[in-house]
Amino acid sequence: MTGWQHIAGSDALNLNLIQRAEKLITPYIVHTPVLQSPTLNEIAGAELFFKCENLQKTGAFKFRGAVHALLHLTAEQRQHGVFTVSSGNHGAALAAAGAILGIAVKVAVPKNAPAVKKANIASYQAEIVEIEPGMAARENFIHEQARNDAQRSFIPPYDHPLIMAGQGTAALELVKAEPELDVLVTPLGGGGLLSGTAMVGHSQGMDVFGVEPELASDGWHSLQTGSIQPALPPTSICDGLLTSLGQHTFPVLQTMVNNVLLVSETEVVAAMQTLWQALKLVIEPSSATVFAAVCKYPQHFRGKRIGLILSGGNVDVTQLPWPVTQLELHP
Amino acid sequence: MTGWQHIAGSDALNLNLIQRAEKLITPYIVHTPVLQSPTLNEIAGAELFFKCENLQKTGAFKFRGAVHALLHLTAEQRQHGVFTVSSGNHGAALAAAGAILGIAVKVAVPKNAPAVKKANIASYQAEIVEIEPGMAARENFIHEQARNDAQRSFIPPYDHPLIMAGQGTAALELVKAEPELDVLVTPLGGGGLLSGTAMVGHSQGMDVFGVEPELASDGWHSLQTGSIQPALPPTSICDGLLTSLGQHTFPVLQTMVNNVLLVSETEVVAAMQTLWQALKLVIEPSSATVFAAVCKYPQHFRGKRIGLILSGGNVDVTQLPWPVTQLELHP
Repeated sequence: MTGWQHIAGSDALNLNLIQRAEKLITPYIVHTPVLQSPTLNEIAGAELFFKCENLQKTGAFKFRGAVHALLHLTAEQRQHGVFTVSSGNHGAALAAAGAILGIAVKVAVPKNAPAVKKANIASYQAEIVEIEPGMAARENFIHEQARNDAQRSFIPPYDHPLIMAGQGTAALELVKAEPELDVLVTPLGGGGLLSGTAMVGHSQGMDVFGVEPELASDGWHSLQTGSIQPALPPTSICDGLLTSLGQHTFPVLQTMVNNVLLVSETEVVAAMQTLWQALKLVIEPSSATVFAAVCKYPQHFRGKRIGLILSGGNVDVTQLPWPVTQLELHP
Repeated sequence: MTGWQHIAGSDALNLNLIQRAEKLITPYIVHTPVLQSPTLNEIAGAELFFKCENLQKTGAFKFRGAVHALLHLTAEQRQHGVFTVSSGNHGAALAAAGAILGIAVKVAVPKNAPAVKKANIASYQAEIVEIEPGMAARENFIHEQARNDAQRSFIPPYDHPLIMAGQGTAALELVKAEPELDVLVTPLGGGGLLSGTAMVGHSQGMDVFGVEPELASDGWHSLQTGSIQPALPPTSICDGLLTSLGQHTFPVLQTMVNNVLLVSETEVVAAMQTLWQALKLVIEPSSATVFAAVCKYPQHFRGKRIGLILSGGNVDVTQLPWPVTQLELHP
């Protein structure tokens, strides 16, 4: 492991770190639009503002954290390159950020990762290494890599203050564009996006909710039990939300998130189809969880002004999970 | 017919009319984003800038022209309401613009119009009248309406300088955001979007191309023969491009458009799938024609900076025309 994880001033996430991240990464990112839809407002009985991170570079908010982390490397660290383990959006984001900044990127990808996500990573000229699926192979790879090439920095997918701060810039842009929001809602996987969003929302006096699929409810369990619970078997369609929380993300969620809301697979697919139709956006299942939750839990959302972060759009458009027979969206 | 069509200063399209339209409609429209994709740039061998009118209100650029036309009505004309004939995006656009401005809207819809487009119109509380498909029924309805309710203004779908000027504001926004473009490309149906775009592009010294499906090539034939040719039977998947040119749009195209390019149905579907996958946008077949043409005719586009207007996103996301076996996009 290199010293990257211990850069001064990045010991824990704070609002200032997110504000500085925004300045640093602005030249590299897409300032994604905030969209509205009268149709969706009517379904939800609330005023919805969608921050479209599916239109971010590499098709996901992950690019924000990745480029932010790389910008904190020293010149020497840059020369030695970076690596990560990712089945999807973080790998592509790091590969693209590395390509822009001239930093060599190696990505270990589980053999069973979706083809469209592997192709996305490969399109940015990263070195790809296939590994077995699961946490054990992942940890093995990281340790082996650190032993064999100690100069190459590990860029974790979510559990680091610089990553969390980068992801928080999406919410920062959103609340600057729409300062009168009552609530922010994001998907919850490892907690990178949610922790950054929670820090921003909390500073503005907004409620903040995370959303998980019932089939990947380890985050909800973690908050209930007060300790990080392991990820569940990867059965949910939301392939971006299958990881467990981290040491850095968990405490932020404990103190700054109102609650984690759970949605079913059917509700996710119905929400996804509805969002595609109304917003004219290709979003991945993970992103649809937020709209599903806003419809399912009117006690938290009805009549309010709600910022929803659409986290990504990396889905194979030829392999869609609908039509669903009943949308089941009206609360 | 009312006097609406003869308002002073709107006898013919000119750049000033488009510039004034932009100021007038800005409070009502979405300032749609301009997106780029390295993947699509590589496929096309050019630098592409996509103006995302699928993200416009009602899911199409048509809202620009409709709200612009309504803003030119007198107070008395507003009170008497408006009507149009439209199987799709213009009807929805007029309905939505009328709802915002408090103007009653009646839309005659051919019985065979796509369900998703009829539902779109209905969602804006317009009065819907079903008529038989075809030009004869359309003309009949307009004349009957004019006879029975002479106070109600007819708002044509494309063939009027105020409509054309409203549609031209999309290109105006695009060239303001990206002043160094070499070429503008739009789909060609009745010529409302293309004439407004051509006026803007021409004023900036840019080349301007329209694109039609081979199965709806009446515009191309019109320019070849020097007279407006009737629409072909509606067999193309591009349901927004099936109309013939109009008396107002045709002369603008004759003087300010470099050429009309033709693409096959297969090319349209391949382009559509590729655009959904790379841009994370839901766009309708008509919009995909422009990318298909940029790939098919490298002699006009390779190595250049190209503005493409993605005209709309009103497509049933549960009824998709792919996968196609071979993308056939590489020139």
